[in-house]
Order: sequence, then structure tokens, then C-alpha cells
Amino acid sequence: MKKSIGILGGMGPLATADLFRKIVLMTDAARDNDHIRIYIDDNASIPDRTAAILSGGADPLPAMTESLRKLESCGADCVIMPCNTAHYFLPRLQALTEIPFLSMLEATAKACAARFPGKTAAVLATKGTLSAGLYQAALKKEGVSFLIPEDAEQDALMRVIYDGVKAGKGPDTYRADMLSVVEALTARGADYFILGCTELPLAAQALSLPQPTVDPTAELAKAAIRFCGYSVKDL
Amino acid sequence: MKKSIGILGGMGPLATADLFRKIVLMTDAARDNDHIRIYIDDNASIPDRTAAILSGGADPLPAMTESLRKLESCGADCVIMPCNTAHYFLPRLQALTEIPFLSMLEATAKACAARFPGKTAAVLATKGTLSAGLYQAALKKEGVSFLIPEDAEQDALMRVIYDGVKAGKGPDTYRADMLSVVEALTARGADYFILGCTELPLAAQALSLPQPTVDPTAELAKAAIRFCGYSVKDL
Repeated sequence: MKKSIGILGGMGPLATADLFRKIVLMTDAARDNDHIRIYIDDNASIPDRTAAILSGGADPLPAMTESLRKLESCGADCVIMPCNTAHYFLPRLQALTEIPFLSMLEATAKACAARFPGKTAAVLATKGTLSAGLYQAALKKEGVSFLIPEDAEQDALMRVIYDGVKAGKGPDTYRADMLSVVEALTARGADYFILGCTELPLAAQALSLPQPTVDPTAELAKAAIRFCGYSVKDL
Repeated sequence: MKKSIGILGGMGPLATADLFRKIVLMTDAARDNDHIRIYIDDNASIPDRTAAILSGGADPLPAMTESLRKLESCGADCVIMPCNTAHYFLPRLQALTEIPFLSMLEATAKACAARFPGKTAAVLATKGTLSAGLYQAALKKEGVSFLIPEDAEQDALMRVIYDGVKAGKGPDTYRADMLSVVEALTARGADYFILGCTELPLAAQALSLPQPTVDPTAELAKAAIRFCGYSVKDL
């Protein structure tokens, strides 16, 4: 029996569409019926994760749990969520379900260790993700060296994510911010960039960013494809 | 209370991802929480629709009904499906549910009448869709004049759809077939093209097709956004 994927989505919607598309494109399939069955709850009502972690914003866990229950009742064999910051809540979600809930952070850290041994990563992520130490812990576990942005760089990244991609704006609105962050981190010794917020692979693609990157959305897609017993076709 | 969308998908998976992305991009929203909640069952096990209509292939209705039930139990307020050929089964699916099931054919025919009054459409679609007269009936109802491909052109289109897009191949594999069909129909008097199989907007985009087109996936996305009470933002 082939396994299926449940996507706990909506964080944000465009990133959810990006994850879905990457799973389809990277599944080694020659016709519709060779593909993986995927259930998606693109739940736009989930409160902002960074606001919940840093500034007492509404708790997203109840809405995430409601989505998890819907994916369970559909029959999903594993669950994934295309939001790095949301992984702050992953241990609590994993405790709520019998279904394997795959970690985007773990998939990404393993990909960094395999693809860039001995090199230094720069972690580009939201304030919520970095304040909670989510990537720091995952990368340390895999022995990956890394840098994180300084405060002003982090503010620029938040503008790229919230005022740019999540607001549905084009690359002209965030080019200067994104390039300034990448250049500053390169000057401090970064060899490659972890696009550790699901809006950032979309920004990097729109900007045709030339630096080497690791795309956690793509790494999560590959991990889920393999979990389901299918072969991965590189993009 | 905001309304949600259920997508009965998997026919094919890449077309389902395309519809999802178009809904997100065309919803007039400035942040994650302004978006529409979308439930998707990307059901890759649904048997081929053209084979069922034309050559006694397995009946897709049971698998489609199973997906419909899952979308209902998630709480979808309307249902749409990104497969023109599958609309052969639409009256039977509509009879099985209380939820409004929006028609891609109807949305497309209305868009043709509004955008190209007095002009002649060429309908590019699968053999199943055209043999069943699905677009012919929808266009006649809106008073839209149209041409359909001849047999050899139709064979070329099926290669574009099945051996190209559904098989995950790039535009080099189907460029000659697609262009020959478009040129022959233009010579016979077509003013614009209905990309009436959900794989064809993907092919047209990959080929940067210069002819005026109507994209049924985009028209269905707009109809669903409006049904849910949201404003449409053009791509």
C-alpha cells in the first residue's frame, strides 16, 4: 500500500503551494497515477508564529491542532508543515498524534552536512525561528557550522518576508534588503545560505540569487517523498 | 463567516498545484490571515478520464466520490476540480453533494464571451473532453463561436498532454506538436485559444506562447475566489 502525505499548510499559503509543487516535480513519476496522494489543509486562520513566540500574539497551536485532526481523518500517513517558525510547536504537535510528523529543520540540517561538509552556513530565518534557537539546535546536532544575521540584517529579512513575499509583492520591493543581508553575511564568512523561512526560497528564485543555497522546502519535500517509498527526481 | 474551497485534485497533480497557486496569487490579500482556507485532496489514484469516456477504462467516479466525501468532512463550502475532462462526470458529482460544485467549463465560457466578443475560439482539449462535447455545449450556451482540432492535430495535442506535461517532461519534448496545432487552427480562423486541458496552461507558459489564450484554471480560480466573497487580483 502506497503511503500518503498530509500538509499542515497556510503558513503562508504561497509557501504551501511551493511545497506541493516541489513534491510533485521531485516525485519520480511518468503519469498521474504514479504520484503520491497528498492531503492539504491550507489553513489561513493560523495565527502568526513569530508574534506568538516573541510578543505574546495569539497561540497558533489550537488552529494547527484542528488542521492536524483533519489530515488524520483524511488518512494521511505522515504530516509535514511548510513553515520553519511553526517547528517551535513541533514537539507539542508530535505528542498529539500517532502519525509521523517529519521535521523540516532536521531534513535541512542533514542536507547541509551532506552537501557542504566543513563549510559555514548562514541561517536566514524569521526572528521567531532564530530567537527560539530552532536552526541552531538542528545544525549543532549534525555538526554544521553556521552564522546568524545581526539585528539590522534581521530587520531587513523580516521586511523581505512580511512586506514582500507574504504581502504578494514582487522582487523590486525586497531586492535591496535581501542582497544587503547576503553580502554582509558573505563578508563575515558564510559559504552558503539556508533559506530558513518558506517565503525565502520564493524570494531567492524571484531574485535569481547566485549564491549557493539550501532550500528547506525542497529538503522537506524530498524527505516526505522518500518516507512514502517513492524515488526522488532532482529539480 | 468566510467561505472555504475544496479542491478535488490529482487530475493531474501538477495542474492541481497550478490551480492552488493561482488561487493564492489572485486572492486580494496582504497577509497570510487574509487568504481563503483551501482543502485539497490530490488523489493520484483517480483513473484516467479520457480512457473511461472513450475506451472502456476504469470508472473514475468511485475515487472522485471518495475525494468529495473527504472534502465535505473537512468542511469545504464549495468544490472545484482542475481537470476539464473530469467535468464529464460533473452532473453525477453534483447530484451526490449539497455543496456547490463550480464548473470550470462554465467559468471559461463566460470569460470567453466577456473578453473576446464576436471572435472565434479554438478549443484545445483532450479527446475525452471534445468527444463528450463538453466545451461545445458550454460555449454554445454563452454564444461563443469556436473551432476544434482535426484528428491529426488532436493526436499531437494528446502527445503534448500525456507524453509531455503529465510525464514531467520539458517544453523541448512538445514544442513542435503544440506550435503545429496552434498554427493550423490560426490558419483556419481561430482568433484565440482555450487551453481546455489543465496541462495546457503549463505547456503554454513553458513555451511562452504568444497567441491570446483563455486559461480555464485561472478562470476557475477566479470563480472560486468570488464565490468565497473575496476580491480577485489579476496576475
